[in-house]
Amino acid sequence: MKTYLDCISCFVRQGLDSARLVSDDEQIHEQVVRQVLRLAVNLDISQTPPAMGQQIHRLIRELTGNEDPYRQMKQRFNRLATDMCDELEDRVAMAEDPLEAAVRLAIAGNIIDLGVKTSIAESAIEEVVRNCLTAEFDGQQVEAFRDSVDQAEKILYLADNAGEIVFDRLLIEQLPREKITVAVRGNPVINDATMDDAKFIGLTDIVEVIDNGSDAPGTILETCSQSFRDRFEDADLVIAKGQGNYETLSDLDKNIFFVLKAKCPVIAEHIGCEIGDMILCRNPSVKVN
Amino acid sequence: MKTYLDCISCFVRQGLDSARLVSDDEQIHEQVVRQVLRLAVNLDISQTPPAMGQQIHRLIRELTGNEDPYRQMKQRFNRLATDMCDELEDRVAMAEDPLEAAVRLAIAGNIIDLGVKTSIAESAIEEVVRNCLTAEFDGQQVEAFRDSVDQAEKILYLADNAGEIVFDRLLIEQLPREKITVAVRGNPVINDATMDDAKFIGLTDIVEVIDNGSDAPGTILETCSQSFRDRFEDADLVIAKGQGNYETLSDLDKNIFFVLKAKCPVIAEHIGCEIGDMILCRNPSVKVN
Repeated sequence: MKTYLDCISCFVRQGLDSARLVSDDEQIHEQVVRQVLRLAVNLDISQTPPAMGQQIHRLIRELTGNEDPYRQMKQRFNRLATDMCDELEDRVAMAEDPLEAAVRLAIAGNIIDLGVKTSIAESAIEEVVRNCLTAEFDGQQVEAFRDSVDQAEKILYLADNAGEIVFDRLLIEQLPREKITVAVRGNPVINDATMDDAKFIGLTDIVEVIDNGSDAPGTILETCSQSFRDRFEDADLVIAKGQGNYETLSDLDKNIFFVLKAKCPVIAEHIGCEIGDMILCRNPSVKVN
Repeated sequence: MKTYLDCISCFVRQGLDSARLVSDDEQIHEQVVRQVLRLAVNLDISQTPPAMGQQIHRLIRELTGNEDPYRQMKQRFNRLATDMCDELEDRVAMAEDPLEAAVRLAIAGNIIDLGVKTSIAESAIEEVVRNCLTAEFDGQQVEAFRDSVDQAEKILYLADNAGEIVFDRLLIEQLPREKITVAVRGNPVINDATMDDAKFIGLTDIVEVIDNGSDAPGTILETCSQSFRDRFEDADLVIAKGQGNYETLSDLDKNIFFVLKAKCPVIAEHIGCEIGDMILCRNPSVKVN
């Protein structure tokens, strides 16, 4: 998905919000805003939005001298989600269709995204999780997803955010684990999950986890490691979590299911849904036999 | 009031929204966004926000080749407000305190501001007007305002937007008209009222109306005509409508009452109120005897 003109004011706002979140120094806030403006003046809008996100957050890490400014927030969300986990496992187990319940929870977990909004109240997460099992949702996509999982031999699961990755584990527990590899980001960017998060929440104990070698808040294949790209190429099904992965992969001719909560107007229009909708959708450009 | 870093993403968004409002040409939309970014890179943030608004809307007029892109919208709001006027005049006349009722309506009319939001539903205007006579409001300020009007010899009333100017007329009818001069913008900018609007709604029939010689969406004295500046200097009371006039005049040591609806978080924080609050406030920096 290309960058829309609407994204540009959002980059400026996100840059400022993030700078304020990780530093109290107003000079740094101003430096970030001006540098984001400079980058945006000549922005190639045929690029995906996470390409700009990658540059903005490199800048913030550089100016603050902090390699992982969201570390504490990521840990907090990992703990919060882990605390909810036992009860959610029970709800999945007791559901009429445990796979659908787990998909719904994985989508709910995608609310923990500090790229779109800079802060998320715990009560908002709890509310989304509470409502996700009964919210409107396209059941037909679940059947297509189930079939695709059954038919696949190698499934690559692209995680999105810390905290959210606990909800991903619930879904992965409903899938044939021997087929699955999970990929996390190669370097810290916003609150996206890295290997530390996968280890902390015990994901590495139940499934193979690799990193993608990149610090983009999405999956920009050119910036990923060769070993990740080989795994991506090999996979006959990709499960891609979150807006950043949707933005960077939705134009590919590849069998991908996107699993996300639509959180911004541009994404919602691109998908053809409303803001807040729970989305499980197949890559629009895939050629299905 | 200086420009806050928060204003900058808003400039970019406003530039795009306005470009879309006045042109269907996507190339113009992109040109406007990129040019706003270029202006913002080196922006002197000690300037007031309307200084940037002035540049953005000059750019939009230049790129679209349309000297008054909001003309039709201004006419629509003038007619809408005029249609509401007879009933509102009755409400003022029947009010226990007609001056306070007229101040409340003048504030309500300030919702017709296309600088903050690009579109305003007629139903939203009607709702604000319906609620304004009973909404919470600082009565003490009304007494200070009444005293100041009584004591003043020359009152300069700075109008803000088309449509809104009909509500201003209701307030002006409650004031000693012989003391009052109304100033409108010298050139079209957004939906700000110009002499055409003052004539259309009959304001020129009841009071002297001048223009300020400027195309800024506020009152940047350096960009106003000398004759306006002389009148401003001469006035011993200024009544300034709307956010743009607040942003450009609130630092002056001059007897000014600001009359507005707080519509953005930066203004609300600067005033010390909530978004949506009805504001009648004296210039914070004025030295009152």
